[in-house]
Amino acid sequence: MSGHELDDLARRAAADLVAVRAGGADRGPAAVEPTDALASILLGFVAEPGDGVLGRLVSGLGARHVATGLLDGWSATEFVERTARAGGRADAPSARELAAGLARWRPRLDRDAFVRSVAQAARVRAHLLLPGDPAWPVGVDDLGVHAPLALWVRGRPSALVESPSIALVGARAASGYGEHVAVESSAGLVDRGFAVVSGGAYGIDGTAHRAALATNGTTVAFLAGGVDRFYPAGHESLLARVAATGAVVSELPCGAAPTRWRFLQRNRLIAAAAAATVVLEAGMRSGSLNTAGHAAALGRPLGAVPGPVTSPSSAGCHRLLREFDAVCVTSAAQMAELVEFDGTGGPDGGSDPAATAPTRTLEVLTIEEQRVLDALGIRRPRTVAELVRTTGLTAGDVLGGLGALDATGLAARSGEGWVRRRPE
Amino acid sequence: MSGHELDDLARRAAADLVAVRAGGADRGPAAVEPTDALASILLGFVAEPGDGVLGRLVSGLGARHVATGLLDGWSATEFVERTARAGGRADAPSARELAAGLARWRPRLDRDAFVRSVAQAARVRAHLLLPGDPAWPVGVDDLGVHAPLALWVRGRPSALVESPSIALVGARAASGYGEHVAVESSAGLVDRGFAVVSGGAYGIDGTAHRAALATNGTTVAFLAGGVDRFYPAGHESLLARVAATGAVVSELPCGAAPTRWRFLQRNRLIAAAAAATVVLEAGMRSGSLNTAGHAAALGRPLGAVPGPVTSPSSAGCHRLLREFDAVCVTSAAQMAELVEFDGTGGPDGGSDPAATAPTRTLEVLTIEEQRVLDALGIRRPRTVAELVRTTGLTAGDVLGGLGALDATGLAARSGEGWVRRRPE
Repeated sequence: MSGHELDDLARRAAADLVAVRAGGADRGPAAVEPTDALASILLGFVAEPGDGVLGRLVSGLGARHVATGLLDGWSATEFVERTARAGGRADAPSARELAAGLARWRPRLDRDAFVRSVAQAARVRAHLLLPGDPAWPVGVDDLGVHAPLALWVRGRPSALVESPSIALVGARAASGYGEHVAVESSAGLVDRGFAVVSGGAYGIDGTAHRAALATNGTTVAFLAGGVDRFYPAGHESLLARVAATGAVVSELPCGAAPTRWRFLQRNRLIAAAAAATVVLEAGMRSGSLNTAGHAAALGRPLGAVPGPVTSPSSAGCHRLLREFDAVCVTSAAQMAELVEFDGTGGPDGGSDPAATAPTRTLEVLTIEEQRVLDALGIRRPRTVAELVRTTGLTAGDVLGGLGALDATGLAARSGEGWVRRRPE
Repeated sequence: MSGHELDDLARRAAADLVAVRAGGADRGPAAVEPTDALASILLGFVAEPGDGVLGRLVSGLGARHVATGLLDGWSATEFVERTARAGGRADAPSARELAAGLARWRPRLDRDAFVRSVAQAARVRAHLLLPGDPAWPVGVDDLGVHAPLALWVRGRPSALVESPSIALVGARAASGYGEHVAVESSAGLVDRGFAVVSGGAYGIDGTAHRAALATNGTTVAFLAGGVDRFYPAGHESLLARVAATGAVVSELPCGAAPTRWRFLQRNRLIAAAAAATVVLEAGMRSGSLNTAGHAAALGRPLGAVPGPVTSPSSAGCHRLLREFDAVCVTSAAQMAELVEFDGTGGPDGGSDPAATAPTRTLEVLTIEEQRVLDALGIRRPRTVAELVRTTGLTAGDVLGGLGALDATGLAARSGEGWVRRRPE
C-alpha cells in the first residue's frame, strides 16, 4: 500500500464507514474527518492495544500523518525528523524504538485484511468512536500514551457516557456466594443510577451483566477481541442482549481474536472507562486482580468485597484489602459511595462535603466521653444534671463530653436534654 | 477510718498480703513496699477503673499519700495544696474535680468490705501486681492517667510478660464460621510463640482461650469483675484451666461484680496489654468493637478478619476495615505480622510515644481547610488549579489550606499535585 492508495482506500472504506456511523440511532455524523477516522482505524489494525511507542508517535505527529508515513514506507529516521519538525515532544520515540515499532506494525499492513475488517464492522453495524466524540468515554484518556486511538461499539455508544459507571469484575470460577454478591451489587447499582461495566466473561462478569439487564439497567461489556465475534461463545446471546440495550465495546478491529495480552489490555480499558472498580470475588490468580491493579494505578477508587477466609475464591479480594489499600465494600450503597466520596463522578457529578468527612469516632473518645455516651438514650433526652448523677462525672466533664460527642455527631441536643445519635 | 488506722490495717492486711505474694511460684517478694501496695489496693477498691482524676492525683502525690489523705479526710483544697507542695503537675486535678472525685470515692471507704476483699484475694491465692513489678504488663502504662494502679492475677503472673501477646476478641454470638476462625487463629498464634489474650466471654473469646489451651499455649483472660469469681459462670471451669497454666487478670478488687462500665474498661486493658488486637468475628454492636477502638486509640496494630457480607456476624469486622483502617487478616501468619511489621510492641516490648498521640485533628480544621481536605483524594493527586475549581475557594485560600493540612499531616505533595493522607 502507498499514500495514494490510502486516499483510494479512504474513498472506498469511507463509504462503508459513513454507512456504519449513520447507523448510530443516537448520534449524528462524527465531528472528526473521515480520513482521520480511517487513519485511526488503520493504526488500531496494525498495532496491539496499548502500544506506547505508537501512542507517543501519534501524539506528536497526528494519526493521519503516522498512517501516511507507515503506508509510504518512511524509515524510523524519517519519522524522527518529521516529529521534530512538527514541534517535537519530550517523550517522542527514539529512532531505535521506532525501528522496533515499524518491525511490529509493517507486517500487518495487509490491505485485503484491513478492508475485510472494516466491511465486517459495517456488516455487524458497529459504531466507530474517536477521542473527542460526544460518546467517547473520557476516562480512557487517563491512560495517556497507552489510551486507545479508536473504539468499536455494538449497541448504543451513549451507554458509555450517559450515566456514571462502576466496573464489577471477578473470577470466572465464581462460587454461589460470589454469584449472590454479583446479583445484589449489580441490581443495587442499577437502582442507584449507575451503568455496570464488566468484561463479559463467565462467572462474576456474566452474572453482573445479567443482573443489570434483569433490573432494566444499562450495562457495558469490554471485549478482548473484535466486536464482530462475541467471546466467550457461551455468552453470545448474553452479549447480544447487552448490545441491545447497552454496549459491547472493543479497541480491537473486527476479526481480531482475543489473546492473553489483549485480555490484559482490555482490563486497563475497563478500569479507565469506569469511575470506580469493584472486585466482587476473586481467587489469588484471577485476572480481575489485573483490572484492580490498573484501577489503582490510575488513581480510580478501588473496592473489594470480602468473603469467608476459608474460601480460596475470596483470597484475591482479601489480598486487595491488605496490600492494595482497596476499600472494603459490602453493599451496593457502599460501592456507590466509592464514586460519590471521591468526587470524581456520581449522578450529580459532585459530592456532599459533610458526607465525606470521615467518621472515626470510636478511637477518639476519651473515657469521660464514653461514659457520657453510655448514659445517653436514643429517645428520651437526658439533662446534664441527670447525666452527672448517672455517670458519676462532674458537670464540667459531662459538658465537655457532650460537646465532643456533639462535634463528632454521636450526641445531639433534644429539648432540654441530650440524646444519643447513631454514627453515620 | 483514719491515717492511723491505715497503719493498723496495713499490719493486718500486709500479713495476708505477704502470704498471697509468697504463694506465687514464679517470683519472690515484691520490690514495692507493702504500704505502697496496700495504698494501691485501697485506691483500686474505692475508685472505678480508669478514673482519670485519681490517676492524675496519684501521679502527682503518690499512691500512699493519696490513700492517707483519703483516710484522714483531707478536703479537695488540701489535696490541691499538698500536690502543689509535692512539685505540682500541669494536669493536676482542680479543686472542683477533686471535690467530685472525693464524692465518688469516700462513700466506698468501708473498712470491713475492704478487709473482706483482701482476705478473699488471699483465699483464692490471687497475686498482686504493681507497676514496676517484673511481671507488670508495661503496655498498660500507655493508658497514662487511666492506667490501672494494681492488677490482681490468678495463675502465673509471668504469663503476662514471658511471650509477645495478641488479643483475639469477638462476639458472644459467634457463628460456626467465627468459631472455626477462632480455633485456627488461636492455635496458629500459639504455634508462633504468642500468648493469646482475650476476655473470657462466651463465643469467640472462650473459643480462643480453649484452642490456646488445647495447643498447650499460654492464654490470659482479663475479667470485668474480681478474680475471686469467674464470670461468666458457664466459663468457671474454662477460666480455672486458663489460670492453671496462664493467667486470669483483673484490676477490680475481689468481690467486685462486673458492670457495663467495667466491661468497657476491661476492654481497654486487653487492648493495652496485648501487642496487637484482632477482631475475629463481630456484629455491628459487638463489645469487641470497643476493644478495637481502644487498640486504635492506643496506636496498637488492629486487625479484623473478614467474613461473608451476607453474615451480620461479620458486619462489625467489615466496619473496622472500612472506617477504622483495620488491617485485613485472614490467617494466624498475617496476625503475627501485625506485631512483627509494626515493631512497636513485639517481643522486645516498648511502644513509640508518637504512635499513641491522640488524633483529634479533624475538629480543629477551619472551614476552608475542611473543604480543601474534602476535595483531595487518597490516590490521584489534585493540582491547586483543580482544587480551586472543586472547592470554589480562591487560590490563596487553597494554598493556605494545603499548608495547614500539610503541617498537620493530613495532606502531602505528590508529583505535581496534592493527596490526602490518613491521620496517623
